[in-house]
Amino acid sequence: MLITIYLIAITAEAMSGALAAGRRNMDAFGVAVIAFVTALGGGTIRDMILGHFPISWTQHPEYVYLVIGAGLVTTLLARFMHHLKTVFLVLDAMGLVAFSLIGCEVALKMHYATPIVIMAGMTTGIFGGILRDVLCNRVPLVFRQELYASVSLIVCGLYLSLQRYGMAHDAATLIAFSGGLGIRLLAIWRGWKLPTFSYQKRWD
Amino acid sequence: MLITIYLIAITAEAMSGALAAGRRNMDAFGVAVIAFVTALGGGTIRDMILGHFPISWTQHPEYVYLVIGAGLVTTLLARFMHHLKTVFLVLDAMGLVAFSLIGCEVALKMHYATPIVIMAGMTTGIFGGILRDVLCNRVPLVFRQELYASVSLIVCGLYLSLQRYGMAHDAATLIAFSGGLGIRLLAIWRGWKLPTFSYQKRWD
Amino acid sequence: MLITIYLIAITAEAMSGALAAGRRNMDAFGVAVIAFVTALGGGTIRDMILGHFPISWTQHPEYVYLVIGAGLVTTLLARFMHHLKTVFLVLDAMGLVAFSLIGCEVALKMHYATPIVIMAGMTTGIFGGILRDVLCNRVPLVFRQELYASVSLIVCGLYLSLQRYGMAHDAATLIAFSGGLGIRLLAIWRGWKLPTFSYQKRWD
Repeated sequence: MLITIYLIAITAEAMSGALAAGRRNMDAFGVAVIAFVTALGGGTIRDMILGHFPISWTQHPEYVYLVIGAGLVTTLLARFMHHLKTVFLVLDAMGLVAFSLIGCEVALKMHYATPIVIMAGMTTGIFGGILRDVLCNRVPLVFRQELYASVSLIVCGLYLSLQRYGMAHDAATLIAFSGGLGIRLLAIWRGWKLPTFSYQKRWD
Repeated sequence: MLITIYLIAITAEAMSGALAAGRRNMDAFGVAVIAFVTALGGGTIRDMILGHFPISWTQHPEYVYLVIGAGLVTTLLARFMHHLKTVFLVLDAMGLVAFSLIGCEVALKMHYATPIVIMAGMTTGIFGGILRDVLCNRVPLVFRQELYASVSLIVCGLYLSLQRYGMAHDAATLIAFSGGLGIRLLAIWRGWKLPTFSYQKRWD
Repeated sequence: MLITIYLIAITAEAMSGALAAGRRNMDAFGVAVIAFVTALGGGTIRDMILGHFPISWTQHPEYVYLVIGAGLVTTLLARFMHHLKTVFLVLDAMGLVAFSLIGCEVALKMHYATPIVIMAGMTTGIFGGILRDVLCNRVPLVFRQELYASVSLIVCGLYLSLQRYGMAHDAATLIAFSGGLGIRLLAIWRGWKLPTFSYQKRWD
């Protein structure tokens, strides 16, 4: 089930990446790179940090075709996409949660300590969007959005805690997934945000 | 032959990186870093993604001296450089093609699947310029330039196809090199571009 | 001793990262990421380039807690921080020097050639700040600051030379540390800078 959600999620992420590329008037190649990086960049950074070689997508060229194809198709469908805003927010939320769980599993299998497992989950969930924004030359959205990274943190923490206290893997995955998805959708609906830190003095 | 072209190409890339650093009023250290990253950054990212350690330039400190030296010399010669614009465009085109072929070979030797080999070639050809632009705080040029990444794609595809259909390695390299160089120069001359995707609605 | 200085230094770097995040009005998560990246990003890039897995901080989750905690505490103390400007400049200088020495040691243990050892030291000393600035969407400060990267270069060169000419490891460390710290503080005090390279012609 996580695989199906994963495939839907990387498709949705690739499409959102393509729209970001369009806002910078990129050409078809730029669209393909941003779509790829948004969808698979988080897992790439995770694998590079964990020393997890070969990197996952290099063993699944079909994922590469999927995200680049989704990005390019988006350029044709763009005019209809804003009608789908709600659909995309839900797919993106599912992706955030699924990526986080998958990231945790990769690090768990490599026997990293718990805080590193959580960071691997969060990196998978969030770094695609950070790379997208760096390549589009803007401050990453995730650093000032409604609860987003925090949802990833909650999902990873819940998943690990439930397993530690003896819950079966599949049940823990299901509960962490549903809980995370619910919190993320509530956060968008109610506009929940973390406190913002503003500091305007210049002295460095 | 590819090695000679490679050395000329990293020198030319380092010099173009130094000029980009000059447009941001960087100091000599900034120039050295941008020159290095423009010339050797693509291969570094490729090696980090493929898990190809040790990374190539760490075994060839002379490459490091060459590109940093070329970057610093550029700061002295800058006033004469715009007379050499055409020379640089040709050297850069040679670099793009040579980098792409070298990137393919590295991935081929590691037995990656064909799409990954092509991506390794393109990463080597293009990511130096992307890193340069990210460090200079602008949207990467390669995402909206005349046919550039596409040339890398064509070169890699041609090289692999020719070898698959039984052509000897050296002949395939020569044909892919000449073909790619020709297309790139034609693209600059005639202003060929990929279609651009513009999308101005804000909804994420 | 280097470990104590290292812990003080990553704390100071994390706090300076948090202030940079505050200048971009980031939320608590953004502050945590920028603090982490500023403090531990240089070592991460070094380990990823050298193929030094597992990456150092993944084996020391306490470092992760320290830097994220320091970043978050900074948001509470920010209004008092500009009184501590001098303290921070000294701590940052200590960090630069300590990071450089630690980076050299990691590469030395892996038997890399001397120029690569120096680059590993400089990467550790400087790339945290570069990543911070890229994520905050500005041209890295280190590319146009008072002698900074040059100090790292001098420290690494001095450290390696003294050892090569037979000085004991601890003595070489102490001399390189004191020398580097002195030069950096002099550079701030006297406003020493590298020559800047300005180039405004557009032709690429």
